[in-house]
Parts: sequence; C-alpha cells; structure tokens
Amino acid sequence: MASSRYDVLGIGNAIVDVIARAEDDFLLRHGMHKGGMALIDEAGAQKIYGAMGQAVEISGGSAANTIVGAASFGARAAFVGKVKNDALGWVFQHDIRAAGIAYDTKPADDGPSTARCFVIVTPDGERTMNTYLGAAQDLHPEDVEAEQITAAAIIYLEGYLWDPPHAKEAFRKAAKIAHGAGRQVALTLSDAFCVDRYRAEFLDLIKNGTVDIVFANERELHSLYQTADFDTAVKALRADARLAVCTRSEKGCVIVTREHVEAVPAHPIKRLVDATGAGDLFAAGFLFGLARGVDHRSAAKLGALAAAEVIQHIGARPEVSLKSLAQQSGLPV
Amino acid sequence: MASSRYDVLGIGNAIVDVIARAEDDFLLRHGMHKGGMALIDEAGAQKIYGAMGQAVEISGGSAANTIVGAASFGARAAFVGKVKNDALGWVFQHDIRAAGIAYDTKPADDGPSTARCFVIVTPDGERTMNTYLGAAQDLHPEDVEAEQITAAAIIYLEGYLWDPPHAKEAFRKAAKIAHGAGRQVALTLSDAFCVDRYRAEFLDLIKNGTVDIVFANERELHSLYQTADFDTAVKALRADARLAVCTRSEKGCVIVTREHVEAVPAHPIKRLVDATGAGDLFAAGFLFGLARGVDHRSAAKLGALAAAEVIQHIGARPEVSLKSLAQQSGLPV
Repeated sequence: MASSRYDVLGIGNAIVDVIARAEDDFLLRHGMHKGGMALIDEAGAQKIYGAMGQAVEISGGSAANTIVGAASFGARAAFVGKVKNDALGWVFQHDIRAAGIAYDTKPADDGPSTARCFVIVTPDGERTMNTYLGAAQDLHPEDVEAEQITAAAIIYLEGYLWDPPHAKEAFRKAAKIAHGAGRQVALTLSDAFCVDRYRAEFLDLIKNGTVDIVFANERELHSLYQTADFDTAVKALRADARLAVCTRSEKGCVIVTREHVEAVPAHPIKRLVDATGAGDLFAAGFLFGLARGVDHRSAAKLGALAAAEVIQHIGARPEVSLKSLAQQSGLPV
Repeated sequence: MASSRYDVLGIGNAIVDVIARAEDDFLLRHGMHKGGMALIDEAGAQKIYGAMGQAVEISGGSAANTIVGAASFGARAAFVGKVKNDALGWVFQHDIRAAGIAYDTKPADDGPSTARCFVIVTPDGERTMNTYLGAAQDLHPEDVEAEQITAAAIIYLEGYLWDPPHAKEAFRKAAKIAHGAGRQVALTLSDAFCVDRYRAEFLDLIKNGTVDIVFANERELHSLYQTADFDTAVKALRADARLAVCTRSEKGCVIVTREHVEAVPAHPIKRLVDATGAGDLFAAGFLFGLARGVDHRSAAKLGALAAAEVIQHIGARPEVSLKSLAQQSGLPV
C-alpha cells in the first residue's frame, strides 16, 4: 500500500448552518422531531427561517465538521462536497480551507443556492435540524477524483449522501477506488430518520464490506436493526461490521468488533450548550486516532474529547485547537 | 410632546460581522490597530478574509446592536440602515426583525454588496475590526422618514455615519426632525480613529446642541479632546455636553452632566470571551433606562449588565433576554 498524502478524506453535503435558540414549543408548533434532521424545500426553508429568532451562520455539514475536527487534531485532510458560487458558498469554502483542508470541488455556477441547515437549539442543548439541500443536490460521481481518493488512508462518508440523487453514486465510486488502493472506508449512519429512509441499503453496505468502519449513535443503531433493545442491536452489529463505534451521549461510547465490545466513558463537560456536531466530532477524534495507529480505546478517548469541546459552544466546528486540548489531557496526538 | 410609538430608533451602518479568533501577531502582520475599526475596500476585504481563520457570521452594526439590545430589555424599537438585496442582506434583515425591531429601509437592488465587518478576536478577548461598508455607503437622507423619527422618544446615531458619503445628511435630517418634535438625540462617538477623522464636526454636534446625549469610551474621549488625561477630557466634556456617559471597560463608567460626575462600577463577569459589542450594549441598557424614566445611575447599571452579557460570548448581540437578566439582578425593567 502506498503511503498516504491525507490521513482522511471526507465526502458529504456542504452546508452552512443557521443556528438559533428556541423553546421546545417551537418544535411542536412546526411539527419537528426533536434531535432529528428533516429535509425541507425552498418554501419550507423560508417558512422556518421566517419563524426562527436571531441566528448565527456557521459552516457545517456532518462529514465536513468531522474533517475539520480531524485537521484540528493535526490530521492531513481533504473534503469533497458541492456548494454554489454564492455568498454562503464562499463562506463554506473559506472556512474549510482556513481549517487547512484540501477542498477542490467545483462550485455550481447556477441552480439552487448553497445548502443551509436550520438548527434549532432548545434550552436542554439538544439540536433539531431542517436541511435545505440546495446545491448539495448536485454532487455527482465526476466530483470524486481517483487520484485524491487513493491518496487518503481513510475515506469517510456520511449516510446523508443517500438523500441527494447522485451522491450515493459518488459514495460507491469513492469506496470502490479506496478499496482498490487498499484504503479503509468509514460510514456514519448520520441520523435515525435517514436510517429509516435507507435501512436496507445501509445494511447492505455494512454486510457486503463496502464500508469497514461504522459510526452510529444509539437512535441510529436502534433504527438500523429495528429494535428498542441496545444489546440486541449491538449483537447484530457485531455480526455485520468489522469495526463500529456507537456513541451514547453522556454515557460515552461502545467500541464494537467481532472479538470485543468495549465501553469508553464520555469526556466530562461543564455545561451542554449546543449538541450540534457531537457525533461529527467524535468521529473526527476516532478517525484521527486510527490514522495515527493508536488503539481503539485511545482513539475513542480522542473522539470523546472532541465531542466534549464542540457541545460546550454554539456551532459544530471546534473553537480551539483539538491538538492542544489533547496534549493538555495527556492523550496521544 | 406627543406620546411615542418607539422608545428608541437607531440609525447606523447595517453590517454583518465575520468573526474569527487570531493571535496578536496576526494584527501586527496586517498592520491593524488593536481595538480599533479600520475601513477597507473590496480588495482589502478579500485579502483579510483570505488570511482569516474559520469564521462565524452574525448580524452586527454598532447602532443596530444597540437597538437589538434595547429591544431585548423590552424597548419598542426601530432601525434605519442600508443593506443590499443579497444573501447577507437577508441575514441582516431577518435577524433584526426576528429581534422585534421595526426595520423598513429599502434594500439596494444593485451596487456593492451588504456591508461586512471582519472582526479579529485576540486571546485577551479584545476585538479589532475591519469594515467593508458596501451597500451601507448608499444610505441617503430619503431613507429617513419624518413620521418614524417623530414617533421615537430617543433617536440614536452612530459616529460611523460620517464615513459613508450621504449618511451624515441623513443623521442631520433625523436630528432636526427629532428636535422639532421635542425628542432627544443621542450620539456614540463609535471609535477613536473615527473621532480622529471627524473631530471638529463631532465637537460641533455636541456644542451646538444637535445631540443631547453622548456615549464615548475612554479612547474616544481622549481623541475628542486630544488629551491623554482622563480628568481633563471629562472636564471638557462637562462644559460641552448636557449628558454624557464614558465607558471604561472593567473600570465601569462615568456619568457626566453639568452638575455631577458619577462613577458606576462594571457588572461582574466570569470570563471575557469577545469584547465585540460592549459599548453598543452599554448604550442599549442606558437608553432603555432613560426611555423608561429611571435615574441615570440605574440606567448605567442596565448598560453595565448588557455589556457584561455580550462580552461573555462570541458576537455583539445578546444571546439571552436582557429583560430576564435584569429581573434576575433586581434591576428596573
């Protein structure tokens, strides 16, 4: 296997988050499922934005957040995702490049505007998301370049790529190229409702070896195996996946392999401000650890550290250097 | 004097802040004066943005922040300022209206894009600003409507309005209409470098009674009277202004009238995160207090409370209800 130019390359929906606080009754009034991600059209976007309070705009996107987090640990990283050549597209491009990520996906010159995710943060710190996919709809297999894929030790793909019409083809193309070059492929299940939409396909990806590493939270795992029992879901996951990590919020995470199931505690926090990005940043630390060759438990601790940082402020990207934070905590970076 | 529909109406540059953290050497490398506001052109904006790290976009603008703060205390408020009909213009319009502010200034359909202020926050929490005025350049006297001005108990104007070519005419028109209707006119000196640019005119506004209430921080006051001695500056201010408040960061503020000079302490904070908006939010609380008829000292305490809230997070707009915060602190709202 050739040495890699990138530790990790992510493919995902390129999104700018529009984040506002609201009380729980806002979710009820707008028929939103707390903690979930719903897809909305342009009219839905206007309606929700019009009803939302003062907001903050911050670059987001699940896999993009993960890649930025990995880079903050010191990973060499790249990202593939589609924006439009508009003001929010420039914001997304600026931010991901400012984080030191190689990002060369050609922006769309026409068509729908750059994707926005309207994030409602309730007083308990939970986030509820409504995504207008916009230009992210236009990610095609041509946007995936073999040269870049083969240059990355791990390819990280988000389940949300099943929503745009052609992105899953880009996903499959990238996975095939990566495996052809002896690289690893990781998948996040993204969201329980997303798993509901694409359960059979996700299970197939895991069972047939298209993905080597699976990230899921409890709700996603329960949805994947259609069970309310955690142990039953983990048992099924062990049979299907080579390596998986299930995140469980304040209960930490469980590392699942054919041989072992190992729990790792969450990193302590002072106050949960905004849960946006918790799963994304856990994946960032875990992938960084894998790329650096540390054991699974140490990788999970890096993930827990990164998740703890991101949930203590607004927005899904780290505000401080995760490398410095890991060094202060005596973790391997 | 007729009863007022608004407690306060602000006129200012309508700006979206682009905020990023950086070390002090970033300021040195780009020749920035720490704590100040510099005007930049489109090329300068591109250069600075290209050099800045990952950023957050939040609606800003000095007088706009003040008006939003006053509304958060419960004030009935209005704002006048120019954006373009573009993505950042929509963000500005959404946020100010979401705060409950009457905002009817017609956006520009062509010409330069919505104003952006690139804010660099250094590890000490100080902010250094570079403003691309863009569409804010196109505020004209026609944007000031007599009916709206006469409906407000206090008109609040920012010194920054001297930078765009026609905004000072809008300022003078508004002040004249307000005084004709028996209303009060307040001015913030905005920035020490801004005072350097327009010292004679600002002094004239204060001495000739165009403004009734003056807000300044220490640096602005020193610049206004070209003295390094605070007491000398305050003495000069007493002779010129009917009512003034000089804010002094952690030292609190000084209320200055012909009869008295009274110091009011700062509100305690846990940690200075981002000083952006400290002066704007002080003015918000003070103006709200004046509009509600409380004494100057109580008004200054409301100002100190609002400033303390805004400097403990990123961005220049309050993240929580200032009315609730004041109630919790036993202050009059």
